Amino acid sequence: MVFGKVAIVGVGLIGGSFGLALKAAKRCGRIVGVGRGVANLELALERGAIDAFETEIGKAVTDADLVLLATPVAQFPQAVASMAKDLMPAALVTDGGSTKRDVVAAARSGLGERCAQFVPAHPIAGAEKSGAGAASADLFRGRKVVLTPLEENAPEKVRVARDVWEALGATTSLMTPEAHDALFAAVSHLPHLLAYALVGEIAGRPDAAQLFGYAAGGFRDFTRIASSHPEMWRDICIANSDRLLAEIAKFSGALRRFEKALQAKDVGQLERLFAEARAARERWLNGEYG
Amino acid sequence: MVFGKVAIVGVGLIGGSFGLALKAAKRCGRIVGVGRGVANLELALERGAIDAFETEIGKAVTDADLVLLATPVAQFPQAVASMAKDLMPAALVTDGGSTKRDVVAAARSGLGERCAQFVPAHPIAGAEKSGAGAASADLFRGRKVVLTPLEENAPEKVRVARDVWEALGATTSLMTPEAHDALFAAVSHLPHLLAYALVGEIAGRPDAAQLFGYAAGGFRDFTRIASSHPEMWRDICIANSDRLLAEIAKFSGALRRFEKALQAKDVGQLERLFAEARAARERWLNGEYG
Repeated sequence: MVFGKVAIVGVGLIGGSFGLALKAAKRCGRIVGVGRGVANLELALERGAIDAFETEIGKAVTDADLVLLATPVAQFPQAVASMAKDLMPAALVTDGGSTKRDVVAAARSGLGERCAQFVPAHPIAGAEKSGAGAASADLFRGRKVVLTPLEENAPEKVRVARDVWEALGATTSLMTPEAHDALFAAVSHLPHLLAYALVGEIAGRPDAAQLFGYAAGGFRDFTRIASSHPEMWRDICIANSDRLLAEIAKFSGALRRFEKALQAKDVGQLERLFAEARAARERWLNGEYG
Repeated sequence: MVFGKVAIVGVGLIGGSFGLALKAAKRCGRIVGVGRGVANLELALERGAIDAFETEIGKAVTDADLVLLATPVAQFPQAVASMAKDLMPAALVTDGGSTKRDVVAAARSGLGERCAQFVPAHPIAGAEKSGAGAASADLFRGRKVVLTPLEENAPEKVRVARDVWEALGATTSLMTPEAHDALFAAVSHLPHLLAYALVGEIAGRPDAAQLFGYAAGGFRDFTRIASSHPEMWRDICIANSDRLLAEIAKFSGALRRFEKALQAKDVGQLERLFAEARAARERWLNGEYG
């Protein structure tokens, strides 16, 4: 399916890459961007991710056949409400948010019955870089996109939404918003929070300079995700706070097992804990978890 | 300085790389390896990291001008004691252990007065790979090596030890064993433990396959160090358990700050915590911490 006019609300890493990839796939006519920062929108224009920009969401979505919401998730309720009256009845709305229960709620409250037009999606294609300058036509290639359809979505609408993301090179799968948020709290949101916590804790010490001075490649990779966008992660953590708190509790339990083994100097238990974790990671890298 | 005969006790990633690098720098004659696994020693021989191997440490260090200890640190007391009677009075001993208070204690108890010959060192050049097969002549190039001299070491001995490591391309610095162990508990040992704890916790769940199935690049980098050698990390954690437990306590405090902010849905505090951590990491990547 080719979309005549496309509106991208929030032209950062995800929104900009969506524009570039959609054009590369020849799946669209004109792309109009909307955003808060004019400098970023001009950069997106210059890079060809959009063809024009508007400052009002209503204007951007007027006559649009496809709308992508790609702002930080806390802005979704207002953004969805702003587009409601101008959205064409046949338009498909999808998004790039990393949480999904809040997005479903925003779709329902902002669009009412027309929430049937909104098929929520989460492209698993984050990066610690942000902004239109970091956008790439290949960002979604080979990546997974999880769609969490509303019961209001017609099957055909879901099919078209999958087709859009697959046209950008992604593979798609379906999940409930609840399952999605629980899953990503564990494998994405918690690791981000741990990385931020570690870096922040060390940065707050009087001898931070010496500590960072000896931090090496392991530390760099472990904390890479702590260079992600603070506003985006603030919103994700707030939107998914219940599941994230549950994950923190589970992780704290796991950490306590190591703590106890260390206190008891339980050599066998420590080696077992390390070996089991390494073996699981090897199975994952070997694709045994699918 | 060129060393006629060199003995490498433990020819894994560090020991094998030491041999390859020392040869590349033309700083040695013959290298004799010692180890537990014959297959690994044969691989080291084949790759040119050693010229011969022995199964007894005493035989390997006889007539050696330079000895590198590069087994997991828990084996140091026995290894040092095994070499005591055959060690030449002029020989220099150094090591590649990731903890230093225990290494100093092993040097003193195993060598007595002759501990003056042992200048402990920690090359900051770990990798999640292990064994002679992963060894590389460039492993130490551009890396830091921290030496923690004993008060028994003559300044000249320390100078020669620095020269050895610098000949392999490293930069060297001096620290007390206490300062070393405190520092690396924070920037290396704790991150390893956190990565192992996260992977192990997820691997133990009934839905581990689905969770790993959606884990992406951020998770991969965050947990890379959980593919490190379990026996090596068991030994490091036991040797440095007091400092590591102190770091776990500090980290748990940092995690509780995030937990409280999430419970209170304190948007401002969350963004502040994320932004401060990201800014610190950027300063580190920009070399502002030296």
